[in-house]
Amino acid sequence: MPGELFHPEIENVTLAQVLAALDDPMRLRIVKVLVHDPDTGERTCTSFRLPVGKSTLTHHFRILREAGLIRQVDRGNSRKAQLRREDIDRRFPGLLALVLAEGTAPETDPAD
Amino acid sequence: MPGELFHPEIENVTLAQVLAALDDPMRLRIVKVLVHDPDTGERTCTSFRLPVGKSTLTHHFRILREAGLIRQVDRGNSRKAQLRREDIDRRFPGLLALVLAEGTAPETDPAD
Repeated sequence: MPGELFHPEIENVTLAQVLAALDDPMRLRIVKVLVHDPDTGERTCTSFRLPVGKSTLTHHFRILREAGLIRQVDRGNSRKAQLRREDIDRRFPGLLALVLAEGTAPETDPAD
Repeated sequence: MPGELFHPEIENVTLAQVLAALDDPMRLRIVKVLVHDPDTGERTCTSFRLPVGKSTLTHHFRILREAGLIRQVDRGNSRKAQLRREDIDRRFPGLLALVLAEGTAPETDPAD
């Protein structure tokens, strides 16, 4: 996995960008899983159990990352995703509470 | 303007629906204007000064109405839009604060 992944400064993220990132059932589901995760842990992309192929998955994680919602880090030969909880709470207070209020956590595999 | 306009019960609106409704620059602008309006007043569609034609305008207002964000009422021969502020605050607490926090009110014509 070559190169450094782009993570925006949260101050430079707009509400429109975040709304666009969340306006997709797969991506909303990913954020829902992460919001419900008490560990604020790192998860592999596959642990989300999304019924899509690898390139679609990569696409969705990229959109979330570029909207400042998740951080992706490479651990050996797996890439993991983590919610940027504190950043989001500072820049968009109340946003994660809205996601959290919307039903229970989707089923996933263990975080690892 | 024939027929009764459909307004959903706010309890039946999902977060995904609201995100989809707000994931558009015109519609976000409309909600931004209404959120900043201290009168919680009724506005004609044209007062929003959106650079689009009538049928596009009608489309955007319909999406917002069906997502529970606005109420549209016919007053004589003009149709007016109003934010469903209390309903939204009850169903999606914090949502309007996010929109309010995102910059100043767009320019508009007077509410009437």
